[in-house]
Amino acid sequence: MEPMHTHISHQYNAELEDIRSKVLQMGGLVEHQIEQALRALTSGDTLLGEAVIMNDAKVNQLDVTIDEECNHIIARRQPAASDLRLVMAVIKTITDLERIGDEAEKIARMAVKLAQEERPKNNYAEIGALGSHVRDMVHEALDAFARMDIEAAVKTAHEDRKIDQKYDGVMRQMITFMMEDPRTITRALDVIWAARALERIGDHARNICEYIVYFVKGKDVRHTTLEQIERDILGREDKNTR
Amino acid sequence: MEPMHTHISHQYNAELEDIRSKVLQMGGLVEHQIEQALRALTSGDTLLGEAVIMNDAKVNQLDVTIDEECNHIIARRQPAASDLRLVMAVIKTITDLERIGDEAEKIARMAVKLAQEERPKNNYAEIGALGSHVRDMVHEALDAFARMDIEAAVKTAHEDRKIDQKYDGVMRQMITFMMEDPRTITRALDVIWAARALERIGDHARNICEYIVYFVKGKDVRHTTLEQIERDILGREDKNTR
Repeated sequence: MEPMHTHISHQYNAELEDIRSKVLQMGGLVEHQIEQALRALTSGDTLLGEAVIMNDAKVNQLDVTIDEECNHIIARRQPAASDLRLVMAVIKTITDLERIGDEAEKIARMAVKLAQEERPKNNYAEIGALGSHVRDMVHEALDAFARMDIEAAVKTAHEDRKIDQKYDGVMRQMITFMMEDPRTITRALDVIWAARALERIGDHARNICEYIVYFVKGKDVRHTTLEQIERDILGREDKNTR
Repeated sequence: MEPMHTHISHQYNAELEDIRSKVLQMGGLVEHQIEQALRALTSGDTLLGEAVIMNDAKVNQLDVTIDEECNHIIARRQPAASDLRLVMAVIKTITDLERIGDEAEKIARMAVKLAQEERPKNNYAEIGALGSHVRDMVHEALDAFARMDIEAAVKTAHEDRKIDQKYDGVMRQMITFMMEDPRTITRALDVIWAARALERIGDHARNICEYIVYFVKGKDVRHTTLEQIERDILGREDKNTR
């Protein structure tokens, strides 16, 4: 992170480093929440589900703390250029992390509810597979954030589509179940909600990847297609830096 | 808006007014998108649905424009206190408006899809009722934003619960349809997705109300319950200002 080390003020550097490392701390907590929520769902563990619901308050607390720190930096340090982009990327990233936390909490609530009901033979294996993929994507997005690695960010953003395909697979399977036996409809809808929550986590992870690109390139890519990003940014990078 | 008029720089005032009025412009566009998407759905109007899908690009463009203006203000004007809170509230509000726009686009896509299929006798009346409620809530949130009216914001945030109840009603109705006639499952799921999109728009409108409270009171209320907000903020206001 070159720009961090060019400041005269060591204190300012330390503040910028601090918000970055707190984002990673919050990210680690959110990853853990996803993992535990999925385990609660697939193992029918009510206590674990309830722990995840409780721990969402910690995610929210970090969101508030980091947001306040960012506001202080803006007010006191008057950041410009890449420092300002970093603070903005942090503010946006924590909003998405907080919402990923909310989705994990929803999955945990679903886990608690489904634990009371008859278990399907495969123990919601389809949700488990989709869930691992989504958790990996969040991990990779945070890893790209830690290194502010634009190439990793663009690659990770791509995973969103594969997740959408897996999600469509879960939907088709649930529709088949419901058609075969209408008594499974309410349970199948709960599985669909859990899958929907996972799919939305994928969207948030993709947003985080886009903030990384914005930080590095100073270009707003939120409304650009992935193909354009690759053509514009990686293409140019290929030419210029290799 | 008292704080706006205390600046020495008229240009700075004009910039702050400009981002506020652009938020309202973006809000008006987003309201229109919701309205048209709902009309496309309930009337089975494919062309109207396609127009909504096209116009989402305008919403995205405003998001990028306002975000850039906010960044310029932070970098050049070094806002503090209530000015900084205003810029932050604007940055967060446009993120939610942009996502409301995305949900409207999803409803429009659903409208185009459902227009090809057999129409239910009631022309998706249940979605129409939920949709009007949600559209009204967005309108009231933007109205509270225009006046930075904390009381209206808290009142509007409350609507979110009534919307959740209406949404649950649509869900129950769809489950009944699916149970009675499994051939309606895919169509019922499309109605459920549209209802889900509306329910999420309610969440975003609620977020906007919270940014208003944050701007006025300088207190982060995102993770506080509505009861606490009312007790803490309106309660205190009752005592102090009346």
